[in-house]
Amino acid sequence: MKLVHDPIHGGIELDDFAVRLVDTPEFQRLRRITQLGLAFLVYPSARHTRFEHSIGTFHIARLIRERNPEIDEGAVYAALLHDLGHYPFSHTLECLFPRHEENTKWLIKHGEIGDVLRERFSLREFFNLLKHPLVSGDIDSDRMDYLVRDAYYTGVSYGLVDLERLVRNLRWDGDRLILGEKGIMAGQNLLISRSMMYPTVYQHHTVRIAGAMLCKAVELEEVELEEIRDMDEVDLVAKLRTSEKEEVRELIGAIEDRRLYKRVIWSGEELDRGTIEELKTELEREFGHLALLDYPPKPHFEERNAFVEFNREIKRLSEVSPVVKALVEAKESNWRWGIYARTDLVERVKAFVSKKA
Amino acid sequence: MKLVHDPIHGGIELDDFAVRLVDTPEFQRLRRITQLGLAFLVYPSARHTRFEHSIGTFHIARLIRERNPEIDEGAVYAALLHDLGHYPFSHTLECLFPRHEENTKWLIKHGEIGDVLRERFSLREFFNLLKHPLVSGDIDSDRMDYLVRDAYYTGVSYGLVDLERLVRNLRWDGDRLILGEKGIMAGQNLLISRSMMYPTVYQHHTVRIAGAMLCKAVELEEVELEEIRDMDEVDLVAKLRTSEKEEVRELIGAIEDRRLYKRVIWSGEELDRGTIEELKTELEREFGHLALLDYPPKPHFEERNAFVEFNREIKRLSEVSPVVKALVEAKESNWRWGIYARTDLVERVKAFVSKKA
Amino acid sequence: MKLVHDPIHGGIELDDFAVRLVDTPEFQRLRRITQLGLAFLVYPSARHTRFEHSIGTFHIARLIRERNPEIDEGAVYAALLHDLGHYPFSHTLECLFPRHEENTKWLIKHGEIGDVLRERFSLREFFNLLKHPLVSGDIDSDRMDYLVRDAYYTGVSYGLVDLERLVRNLRWDGDRLILGEKGIMAGQNLLISRSMMYPTVYQHHTVRIAGAMLCKAVELEEVELEEIRDMDEVDLVAKLRTSEKEEVRELIGAIEDRRLYKRVIWSGEELDRGTIEELKTELEREFGHLALLDYPPKPHFEERNAFVEFNREIKRLSEVSPVVKALVEAKESNWRWGIYARTDLVERVKAFVSKKA
Amino acid sequence: MKLVHDPIHGGIELDDFAVRLVDTPEFQRLRRITQLGLAFLVYPSARHTRFEHSIGTFHIARLIRERNPEIDEGAVYAALLHDLGHYPFSHTLECLFPRHEENTKWLIKHGEIGDVLRERFSLREFFNLLKHPLVSGDIDSDRMDYLVRDAYYTGVSYGLVDLERLVRNLRWDGDRLILGEKGIMAGQNLLISRSMMYPTVYQHHTVRIAGAMLCKAVELEEVELEEIRDMDEVDLVAKLRTSEKEEVRELIGAIEDRRLYKRVIWSGEELDRGTIEELKTELEREFGHLALLDYPPKPHFEERNAFVEFNREIKRLSEVSPVVKALVEAKESNWRWGIYARTDLVERVKAFVSKKA
Repeated sequence: MKLVHDPIHGGIELDDFAVRLVDTPEFQRLRRITQLGLAFLVYPSARHTRFEHSIGTFHIARLIRERNPEIDEGAVYAALLHDLGHYPFSHTLECLFPRHEENTKWLIKHGEIGDVLRERFSLREFFNLLKHPLVSGDIDSDRMDYLVRDAYYTGVSYGLVDLERLVRNLRWDGDRLILGEKGIMAGQNLLISRSMMYPTVYQHHTVRIAGAMLCKAVELEEVELEEIRDMDEVDLVAKLRTSEKEEVRELIGAIEDRRLYKRVIWSGEELDRGTIEELKTELEREFGHLALLDYPPKPHFEERNAFVEFNREIKRLSEVSPVVKALVEAKESNWRWGIYARTDLVERVKAFVSKKA
Repeated sequence: MKLVHDPIHGGIELDDFAVRLVDTPEFQRLRRITQLGLAFLVYPSARHTRFEHSIGTFHIARLIRERNPEIDEGAVYAALLHDLGHYPFSHTLECLFPRHEENTKWLIKHGEIGDVLRERFSLREFFNLLKHPLVSGDIDSDRMDYLVRDAYYTGVSYGLVDLERLVRNLRWDGDRLILGEKGIMAGQNLLISRSMMYPTVYQHHTVRIAGAMLCKAVELEEVELEEIRDMDEVDLVAKLRTSEKEEVRELIGAIEDRRLYKRVIWSGEELDRGTIEELKTELEREFGHLALLDYPPKPHFEERNAFVEFNREIKRLSEVSPVVKALVEAKESNWRWGIYARTDLVERVKAFVSKKA
Repeated sequence: MKLVHDPIHGGIELDDFAVRLVDTPEFQRLRRITQLGLAFLVYPSARHTRFEHSIGTFHIARLIRERNPEIDEGAVYAALLHDLGHYPFSHTLECLFPRHEENTKWLIKHGEIGDVLRERFSLREFFNLLKHPLVSGDIDSDRMDYLVRDAYYTGVSYGLVDLERLVRNLRWDGDRLILGEKGIMAGQNLLISRSMMYPTVYQHHTVRIAGAMLCKAVELEEVELEEIRDMDEVDLVAKLRTSEKEEVRELIGAIEDRRLYKRVIWSGEELDRGTIEELKTELEREFGHLALLDYPPKPHFEERNAFVEFNREIKRLSEVSPVVKALVEAKESNWRWGIYARTDLVERVKAFVSKKA
Repeated sequence: MKLVHDPIHGGIELDDFAVRLVDTPEFQRLRRITQLGLAFLVYPSARHTRFEHSIGTFHIARLIRERNPEIDEGAVYAALLHDLGHYPFSHTLECLFPRHEENTKWLIKHGEIGDVLRERFSLREFFNLLKHPLVSGDIDSDRMDYLVRDAYYTGVSYGLVDLERLVRNLRWDGDRLILGEKGIMAGQNLLISRSMMYPTVYQHHTVRIAGAMLCKAVELEEVELEEIRDMDEVDLVAKLRTSEKEEVRELIGAIEDRRLYKRVIWSGEELDRGTIEELKTELEREFGHLALLDYPPKPHFEERNAFVEFNREIKRLSEVSPVVKALVEAKESNWRWGIYARTDLVERVKAFVSKKA
């Protein structure tokens, strides 16, 4: 048994198997993957990593399982490893590479951590556990940790979630986590918190701009999937800093010195696929790496499996809470795409784009 | 004017001159210098950087100056830049290089940030301000920020300091900051907090071990002062990882995967200089980089300039508070030197050392 | 100037005029009026009073005015006195007496505090200030204080509001407080917080039951408006305890020993006025003070004056935030009326009521 | 089982036996005994009661016992009831009546709560448990709750104590609670916190003055021990307000409107018993209830049973911690006696006293 100190949860006890998982190079690498990627450019104190978050998620998962011992114990270790595959700067590089969930599996298959896991699980079994509602639902241990943690490190109060009340009122029915009536308000609060953290932190336009610049740098550097899979942030940044391409060195330098591009366009109106491609190509031809189109996929926010017990019936949270219903329906209202350009080019890019439109 | 979000102080306003200082590469580099060096190996969440701390120190300095406008305004900018010269992993490498205060001056002299400063100050004048009581006393803006911040990020509660009461009761008498009677308890609390953070966080034996390993790696790599001066943690780690020397790669790998050496000796008894040198040489000859002697200088904790006003007289805090007196007198009781070795060699090193003694 | 210590806002400075207002018996009486009335029966730690809340409201009002000096200074003192007229146990007795706003005016007119006020204001002028948007809007200093304070004292986290961001982004346009774009999320958060505190704390069914019992006791005791106007909780409780009527002594004893009635009916379906009156009369005839009908007015939650600036236009917050829109529309969903009875009578009352229906 | 919401500890579970104890009139009376007596005159928000504190103490006691099941289970209920006998305004009236510990036993012997207890304990056995180290040592559940709670409600940060680390490191050796090495710093912190809360909160001179005024009022009213034993604050205040003696009504009115006496003398120099009596008599003869001598017993702060395990030996904390040693030795330095008088008489009383001296 080992004790990990954490400002969110206090002392977290790791059992021997968890210690062995944590002590692998694959897991230690998470110490060098920041939880919020480039958000520190807006919230300088947001330097926490996937390492602490993973351990915090494990802790919450175990608390829930203590009250619901019928939950497969493996799901608690899945909670610990659910973010193993994140690339440097977390979600940022998912613009170029498969989602981190895929990489989690790859690292488990090919790393020391897989050897530890195989002593207790078949990998196939474990990969299924990574989709367990304890780890990957609308009200799960992952969200319960990251909302509170991100709030703590950014200082943005919206993420505050009543962890205790959630843990106390979640009940496993063999298939699903059901939130008891006394936890409904806390569940609603969790979903609201998440919706408020999105525009304020996760999708803050400055973070988006820095992210688009980093994606461009990595793209120009032609970093391969095989290479990025087990890179940490030191590896990636060092590689970009010493790139042979001047554009790459310029981009990473601009990010690090916080000389960020500015918004030329910031819009919630959808474009069709053809227009997007065309715009992208033309911007590239005309401005190279100095103007960037950032057209993210629309978020899938629909509340799918937040089940609650209300008047002795199992319902979806959105049926019971008009606010959650509004959230689900309004989801896309905060979605935006943008075009960004180096400060001195903003006007020229604006003119260029408006001529095209 | 610019607003920086901070979980400790809320929104911090930077005036235009501060913004220009912050926007230099020298200052932005502080984003990649962790405040507590390798303490994250014990407190994983302690990933905050000198960047946030510097801005927090500036903020407190300004709050104190708002109530004491006779304080030289430059001291507030000195508060902002007081930690500019920290090497990668903060104090860790002061085993090999001059204290960071020297490097602060060097970076100012040779960097863009010096150009900004020269618009308002002669450098000589500014270097004097770096020793101003507002920045560098027993009760100063530096400590007031770091104690609270380190407590927040480690989750160790001992650092909690009554910032508001201190700010409200500090009075500038032309030469010194004097703490009014209503602030004495808060001042005592600050000094106690500091004394408790030392063994718990700053000098935690695991942090000391990792630090000794890093010092060894940097020493073996023969990194020069000229090179380290403006390195950040990415530079240094990348350099060590790609060293041509196997020992260096081994050491940095062991730190990063948290396979740390263990204590062979951990003692509070002083050795004379000759014995230390001899022991060091022999350990090195016998075990190379696998056994390390860590003999830090004794701390200078004496309370020199915590002045308070008590019954209308100016006194030292230690004259008024028996607890502070006890702290000052007991200072060294937590001082320790150690010998550390790779886990598999602990017994052999122990035998070797006891034979020598 | 005087400093008041407050766990929410830290040290609050009272100017001389505020001190003189606070030092009147009318204001000191607020120390003996609990902020949340009988909510301590559910949240035992909720023992805070209108006194602290009034001073906290004054503090926030002053912070907003510091950034908007065109706001009438009197509005800040109106913030201080806005709750002066609360009866013992705050809103509880508004079942029997005029709203506390009326009593605030009465106490000012007839108390020492009016003499202090008259030195700077005509009372007519001051009564108008009590309706100033700084004190009495959808996003005002009153709510900003009580949500955070009630959250702090109950331990219910939903009330956490980003005070700093609100204060920083509220702008006075001569008529209204307008929330700037960077404050919209914080404004939304305040309205959500309020909507969540209602069912969880303010309208918790146990609090409602105790409130109905107290109303009955005061009604039976035939306490007159003239008498209640300047009573504090000691006066009222002592009076009820020593009542000549056994029912009154029984009721107050049951509240104080927490032997509370139980719900017979708890429903969101409206009744028409006639049915209500009839039910009330019959319950009273049959069960006297042992069964109580509690039919509160429907809440007026509509967001009327939460103005925001969005894309350089002034809009209502509900136009900009789908969640606030949902809140406004869903308002009544938490409204409930109830019939409560002494534990041993619950079944009999249930039978009686269902026979009537 | 029942859940009590608490801002300090979150949800506290009460087992059935605890619920039955809490549901007696003797325990519910604690809701009307403020934890810090008249301290709300300095810290207006300090309105918490012995009720919450008792439940919090029970909670901590149970947490410690969960890790040390050999501790007598009864000690946990002793933790719940340890403060049952407090008089109105807690320690204030111990100037006139026996210590509250005596009254706790009396109430148990004569109240309903005794009947509940007798089902599981002989009263003699239970009275012994009230002195159990879990409840009544230097590092016990009582202090661990009240320091944190009083800090929370006053906003004075000095009381913050690392509850988790203490609970985790306390070990029962059959006779004593021993603090393990990893808890030493937390134990030291607890004792320091206590020493700082004394002058700042518990013995704040304004609180002392109000207390002396209340003692005088109760003395003049000739309230008997038999009467005060089960009074709550409503009973006492109502009695004093309606006293037939004008002096009594004056005193309670002055306390409630915060027109407090001022210090004439405030000194740390001891007087002999004869001088004290003489001074008291003469002041009384000359000024009646308008000048008060307040000469409290010297505090017994010595650290008697804070045992720690250090290098595998059991020691006293003061042997291991120089700061605690300093605290123990310096104890009396904050002790003060005072003479207070109505504001308009301060000068006359000062003259009178100096003539006597």
